[in-house]
Amino acid sequence: MQTNDTITTQLNHRTVRQFTDQPLDKETLTTLYEVARRTATSQYLQQFSLIHVTDLAKKRRFASICRQPAIAENGDLFIFVADLRRNQQIRRQNGADDGRLHTMDLYLQGMADATLALQNMYVAAESLGLGGVILGSIRNDLKAVTELLDLPAMVIPVLGLRLGVPAEDHEQKPRLPQKLLVMENTYNDVLDEQAYQEFDRTLATYYAERNANARQENFTSLIAGENSTLNEKVTKRDDVLEVTHAQGLLWK
Amino acid sequence: MQTNDTITTQLNHRTVRQFTDQPLDKETLTTLYEVARRTATSQYLQQFSLIHVTDLAKKRRFASICRQPAIAENGDLFIFVADLRRNQQIRRQNGADDGRLHTMDLYLQGMADATLALQNMYVAAESLGLGGVILGSIRNDLKAVTELLDLPAMVIPVLGLRLGVPAEDHEQKPRLPQKLLVMENTYNDVLDEQAYQEFDRTLATYYAERNANARQENFTSLIAGENSTLNEKVTKRDDVLEVTHAQGLLWK
Repeated sequence: MQTNDTITTQLNHRTVRQFTDQPLDKETLTTLYEVARRTATSQYLQQFSLIHVTDLAKKRRFASICRQPAIAENGDLFIFVADLRRNQQIRRQNGADDGRLHTMDLYLQGMADATLALQNMYVAAESLGLGGVILGSIRNDLKAVTELLDLPAMVIPVLGLRLGVPAEDHEQKPRLPQKLLVMENTYNDVLDEQAYQEFDRTLATYYAERNANARQENFTSLIAGENSTLNEKVTKRDDVLEVTHAQGLLWK
Repeated sequence: MQTNDTITTQLNHRTVRQFTDQPLDKETLTTLYEVARRTATSQYLQQFSLIHVTDLAKKRRFASICRQPAIAENGDLFIFVADLRRNQQIRRQNGADDGRLHTMDLYLQGMADATLALQNMYVAAESLGLGGVILGSIRNDLKAVTELLDLPAMVIPVLGLRLGVPAEDHEQKPRLPQKLLVMENTYNDVLDEQAYQEFDRTLATYYAERNANARQENFTSLIAGENSTLNEKVTKRDDVLEVTHAQGLLWK
């Protein structure tokens, strides 16, 4: 393995959900925003924005929506949005129609811009000794999030990010081995039972031995067990297409 | 601004499309895959894979699809896919139905996993002195890409990434200022005409003065001009929903 400070940071990645009371200072925020701003962007369209949520009442609402009480208690909260509104405004200001902005293609470009920028900023934060957690759980009530941030049409929340000075230190959680994630030239559709069995054992050991919240679980039970999040049920998260359409996106 | 090696790398980011003949060595590949593998993943579902395309005939097809001839000539090519197939296999192997795997919610989780992992690996590569370019242009013919990589149902290409030892060095391209990208608590829907005019001037100067391919252009003309990529037209990229559905994804 090659190594340097950046890669060491990346390989040490773990989720942090509890932070000290110390909010990010202005210099750190400016640095992180600058990194986000410098991220690669699809066709140079720059279709993302990020909203720093500092209002305590709003943070409490996010804590409830994301079912993560600590959101209201510590850490800085950022919501990354796919933002096709800016380019719509520029087009309208210049007498152009909305063109391709309502297509799925353009929607996906905005989603990618926001996600790439978030990851880039997350790495920068970790390189400064900060910790964080990504919040896909904003989709637990996407409509509420959209209203909470006063998002106009053509803007949709993608992911949240909490950052702060870590106040907890977890063991690193195992991940599927490279041989299941990386392929060459063609998709490998053969189920490698042995690799999954090994991974089940690794993960079971991790769950049994970890300091906080030890339990009996493995990857197969997480994915296919009776309490799997993947089991059939309709949730508020299934509003996502409706909310996306209501925001004017992904029409065609 | 805070700084360290990681942030310096990130702030120096620029697109590189021409590489030397030297392919990535095995140690570098292993390191980059390890970084991708360590990336945050939505609900621990680990729904991405990456396919290293080394076959020259396939690279030629990508060069044609992406309209980037250099793809066939130099650099390593990786296609990141949202991979819900693994979890489908595990569920079927264990007698469970497909559960929520066909929902938009799960589709978006796979898209996010793939995009986050790509950006993380891209930063690691740049920290090693490599350069790269993200290929959204695989969506120029998503169906062809799907066939080229023999992707089964529940797997969809997200973005490509080319990496290599840079054989070109460009000026850094300007980006929209922080004040247009970063907001606090609420979306700012007021068109800041002065900020856009300033940015138009900055970008026009960049285009006029850059070494390669100098031209007369600004942000407004890119977004709203008569040759804007955003102008109304139906392209092969508008197959994306059809191909996504055909792959079994985003049904409900």
